[in-house]
Amino acid sequence: MKYNQLHFDPGSKARAGTIETDHGKIETPIFMPVGTAGSVKAVHQRELVDDIKAEIILGNTYHLYLRPGMNILEKAGGIHKFIGWDKPVLTDSGGYQVYSLAENRKITENGVTFKSHIDGTKYYFSPEIAIDIQRQIGADIVMAFDECTPYPCDRNYAKNSMEMTHRWLARCCKRMDETSGLYGYNQSLFPIVQGSTFSDLRRKSAETISDFNQDGNAIGGLSVGEPADEMYTMTEEVCQILPDNKPRYLMGVGTPANILESIALGIDMFDCVMPTRNGRNGMLFTTEGIMNMRNEKWKDDNLPINSELGGYVSTHYTRSYLRHLITSKEILGAQIASIHNLTFYLWLVKQARKHILSGDFSTWKDSMVKKIMIKL
Amino acid sequence: MKYNQLHFDPGSKARAGTIETDHGKIETPIFMPVGTAGSVKAVHQRELVDDIKAEIILGNTYHLYLRPGMNILEKAGGIHKFIGWDKPVLTDSGGYQVYSLAENRKITENGVTFKSHIDGTKYYFSPEIAIDIQRQIGADIVMAFDECTPYPCDRNYAKNSMEMTHRWLARCCKRMDETSGLYGYNQSLFPIVQGSTFSDLRRKSAETISDFNQDGNAIGGLSVGEPADEMYTMTEEVCQILPDNKPRYLMGVGTPANILESIALGIDMFDCVMPTRNGRNGMLFTTEGIMNMRNEKWKDDNLPINSELGGYVSTHYTRSYLRHLITSKEILGAQIASIHNLTFYLWLVKQARKHILSGDFSTWKDSMVKKIMIKL
Repeated sequence: MKYNQLHFDPGSKARAGTIETDHGKIETPIFMPVGTAGSVKAVHQRELVDDIKAEIILGNTYHLYLRPGMNILEKAGGIHKFIGWDKPVLTDSGGYQVYSLAENRKITENGVTFKSHIDGTKYYFSPEIAIDIQRQIGADIVMAFDECTPYPCDRNYAKNSMEMTHRWLARCCKRMDETSGLYGYNQSLFPIVQGSTFSDLRRKSAETISDFNQDGNAIGGLSVGEPADEMYTMTEEVCQILPDNKPRYLMGVGTPANILESIALGIDMFDCVMPTRNGRNGMLFTTEGIMNMRNEKWKDDNLPINSELGGYVSTHYTRSYLRHLITSKEILGAQIASIHNLTFYLWLVKQARKHILSGDFSTWKDSMVKKIMIKL
Repeated sequence: MKYNQLHFDPGSKARAGTIETDHGKIETPIFMPVGTAGSVKAVHQRELVDDIKAEIILGNTYHLYLRPGMNILEKAGGIHKFIGWDKPVLTDSGGYQVYSLAENRKITENGVTFKSHIDGTKYYFSPEIAIDIQRQIGADIVMAFDECTPYPCDRNYAKNSMEMTHRWLARCCKRMDETSGLYGYNQSLFPIVQGSTFSDLRRKSAETISDFNQDGNAIGGLSVGEPADEMYTMTEEVCQILPDNKPRYLMGVGTPANILESIALGIDMFDCVMPTRNGRNGMLFTTEGIMNMRNEKWKDDNLPINSELGGYVSTHYTRSYLRHLITSKEILGAQIASIHNLTFYLWLVKQARKHILSGDFSTWKDSMVKKIMIKL
C-alpha cells in the first residue's frame, strides 16, 4: 500500500492524497460505506460503484466471523470474490464489539471472550486470532485488535486499557509479519490510537503506535457519546503526532459536519453507519440540509429528492413518493434513502478534496457545515 | 387501447399479440410484476425496465387508497408520475380484498364496507367509487369491481355472487362512460368472469361479460386454493367463450408451470406476488428448477445464481453469497431474489411468445413445465 500526499490546505491541516492498494486507488479524503456482514444494507454492489462512487467499503470481522464464517469465505477466495466487489475493502478487528457487546464479553490480557448476539455461542478473539481471521477474510486494510473504551471512562481504566491495546498491537504486528495474505494480494495493518478523552494518554498512544511504522494509522474510541468538541480536541492532538506521510483514519465518524471538521484537522478516512441506518429511518442528508421524510411537510412535495446532488435516485424519485415508501415501510424506501445518503457522503468528501486542491477548503468548509446541518 | 393478435399456436390455444396503450406497447403473453402500494417490493423502477424487462406493472386500488391516498396521488398527477414509471399500469378494483379481508368487510348489493388492515378505519367501496378511485389513480387498465369468492364455495352463494358481480359490472361500465381520465390519456375497463369452480356458472359469466364489449376481459376467483386441474378446466371453458380479438387476463396466477399451462389455454396476461414474496423468503425460480436458498447445499456453492438466465444479479452474485444474505436477513438478499425471480418470469413469457411465433410452443411448453418445477 502506498500513500501519496498531494496537497495541504493553507488554512487548515486538511490534505488531499491517494492510497494505492492491490485492488485499486483511493482518493482521500474518503468516506467508506459500512457493509457489516458483507453487504452495504439495501444497496447493490453496482450501485456502490455507479451511483455512490464508493472507492472502498468496510466489513466487520466479528459479524463476518459469525456469518458466513471463515470456511465459506476461504472457499469463496476471500471477501471480494464472495460479495462480488473488486475495489478495496477494510475490516475492523472486532475491537469495537469489545465496546458494543459490553454485557456479553470478558476481557483478559490474552484476549476477549464474546457471546454471539445471534445465538449466544461463546467465541474467543485474541490479537493473533483477529489477524488470522482478517487474513482469511482478505481485506486490503486490516485493523489492529484493540479495546474501544466507553465514554465517560475512568482515567485509570483508560490508561490500563490503552497500555494493553499497545501490547496487543505488538502481538498483531508480529502475527502480520509471520503470516501472509491467502489470496495473492497485499494486506496492510493499521494500528489504533486509544486513550479515551485524556489528552496526555492520546498523545502517548499516538507516539507509541506511530513507532510501529505501519502503512497507516487510525483513531479509535471516539464518537462513542462524548461531546463533539472533545472529539475534535482529541483528533487535533493526535493528528499533530501521527506521521504526515501516512493516511489517518478516524473510526466510526460521523455526521457530515463531523467529517468536514475532522478533514480540517488532518483526517483522511472515515466510516459510519449513519447514512444507511438513519436513511432506513427516513433521515436524509442533502445539499440543502437535513430532511426527515416522516414529516408531513413532504407528503405532497413533488420535487425530486435533491436535484443539486444529481444521480438516479435523488433526481428520479420525488419527496412525496419517498415519504410514502418510508411511512409504508416499503423496502424501496430504505433502498432510495441509503443510496441517496451515501451518494451525498461521497459527494461531500469529493467536494472537500476539490477545495483542498484549489486552496479554499477552510472557507468552503465553514459555509458548508452551516448549510448541511440545517433541519429543513 | 388496441389489441393485435399476431399468431395462434397450431398445437394449443396459445396466442402472441400486442396491446397498445397511451403509455406504450405490451407484447403478450405478458407477466405483470405486482407493485401493491406503488412499489414492486425491493426493486427500483430502473431495474424493472433494464434488468427485468417489465412492460406493465400492477397496483392495488385498496392499498393505494389507504396510502398514500387519493389527494396525494391526484396532486402528483397520477400513479405514473407519483412512482416514476412511464410504462403501462393496471390496477385491480379492491374486489380481491372483498375475499382476502373476509373477516373485516360487509357486502351488500350497493357495495362493500372494509375495515383498514392498517388502523381499523372503516371505508366504503361501491362499483362507482371503485371506478372513481381508479380514475384518480390513473392506471391504463382498470378492473371492474367484483366479488372474488372463496374456495370451496357453495353453489348458491357462487351463483348469487356472480349475478351481483354482473350487476356491479353494469354500474362500473356506466360510471366509466360518464367520466373520463384525469391526466390526458385513455383508461380501459376489464370486466371479470366469476362463478367459482362451476362450469355452467363460469360459461354464463363469460358470455355475460363478453357482451359488455370492453377492451379486454379477465378471469377472477381462481388461484384461491382450488386444485390446479380445476383452475385449468375453468380457464379452458372460459377462454372458449371470451372473444379472440381481445386480451385475456388470468388474475393472481401463478407458478411458472401455471403460467405456461394457462398460456396454452389462451391467456395473455398474468400477475402474481409469488416471484417477489417467495423470493424474499429465499425461494428462487431458475431455468434449471427451484432453489431454496435456505438449504445447506448452497452454502459454499460459488457458482453464479443462474448463468443461463443472464442479467446482472443472476450472473454477478453467487449462490453462497445469496444464501448468506437470505439467512442473515440482509435486505440485499430480498433485492437480489426479487429481481432474479421477476427476470425469470419475464424471460419465461418472452420464451413462450417466441415459441408461439415459431410454431413449436406446445412441445417446448411440455418440456419446460417438467424442468422448471424440479426442486434442486
